[in-house]
Amino acid sequence: MIVRDLNEARNTERHVFSNGWDSVRLLLKSDGMGFSFHITTIHAGAELPMHYKNHVECVYCIDGTGSIEDCATGEVHPIRPGTVYALNDNDKHILRADPENNLVTACVFNPPVTGSEVHQADGSYALEAEEA
Amino acid sequence: MIVRDLNEARNTERHVFSNGWDSVRLLLKSDGMGFSFHITTIHAGAELPMHYKNHVECVYCIDGTGSIEDCATGEVHPIRPGTVYALNDNDKHILRADPENNLVTACVFNPPVTGSEVHQADGSYALEAEEA
Repeated sequence: MIVRDLNEARNTERHVFSNGWDSVRLLLKSDGMGFSFHITTIHAGAELPMHYKNHVECVYCIDGTGSIEDCATGEVHPIRPGTVYALNDNDKHILRADPENNLVTACVFNPPVTGSEVHQADGSYALEAEEA
Repeated sequence: MIVRDLNEARNTERHVFSNGWDSVRLLLKSDGMGFSFHITTIHAGAELPMHYKNHVECVYCIDGTGSIEDCATGEVHPIRPGTVYALNDNDKHILRADPENNLVTACVFNPPVTGSEVHQADGSYALEAEEA
């Protein structure tokens, strides 16, 4: 059994910072769960174009508001506490946090993030490297 | 891309109720993510002995307080918002919500729950069937 705490993991090597977001990797590939689990905060007003080509990801909103734009269709879905979106088709998308608040989310990646991509690249690169 | 909402999913077939807990299955096996994702509420004062023999599971506390007892060691870990535990070794455990509050959690199962176990068994059976 693994037990960890978000506040204890903050400001350790589990906590990565990038342009417009930061993420605490609570479970990584090495934990052997077959997925990784992160608490990721999108900073107020940030606009993040993303495209995970090699992972599926789900994102559940715990706190704050924003939106996700599906680049394939142009549709924009509002995000509020209780919204979940799943990138089940490696969907190219733009994630936005409203200017008034951070957007706090729980994220699950399959296959799991190893953590080393992040260390090598300091967060933003891990995303950019996967952009189309 | 899949977009769903906790409040819209409440009181639909996604929402299962059992003795001491209820769960909204936001992502199931059929969504093709390789994991399932649930928002599960442990009711105030509930004490739930559990043993998932065929799944690994992680549980992240969004709201409320309680504890998890590792039956192998007798250790009791407090749970509060920000705590995550992972049953990476099919750990037999007892989950408790404090009497003062519900315990609201985000749960990830691998392999994913199909939903049909739950329908057949109305929730508690799905857990009991997996007890040692």
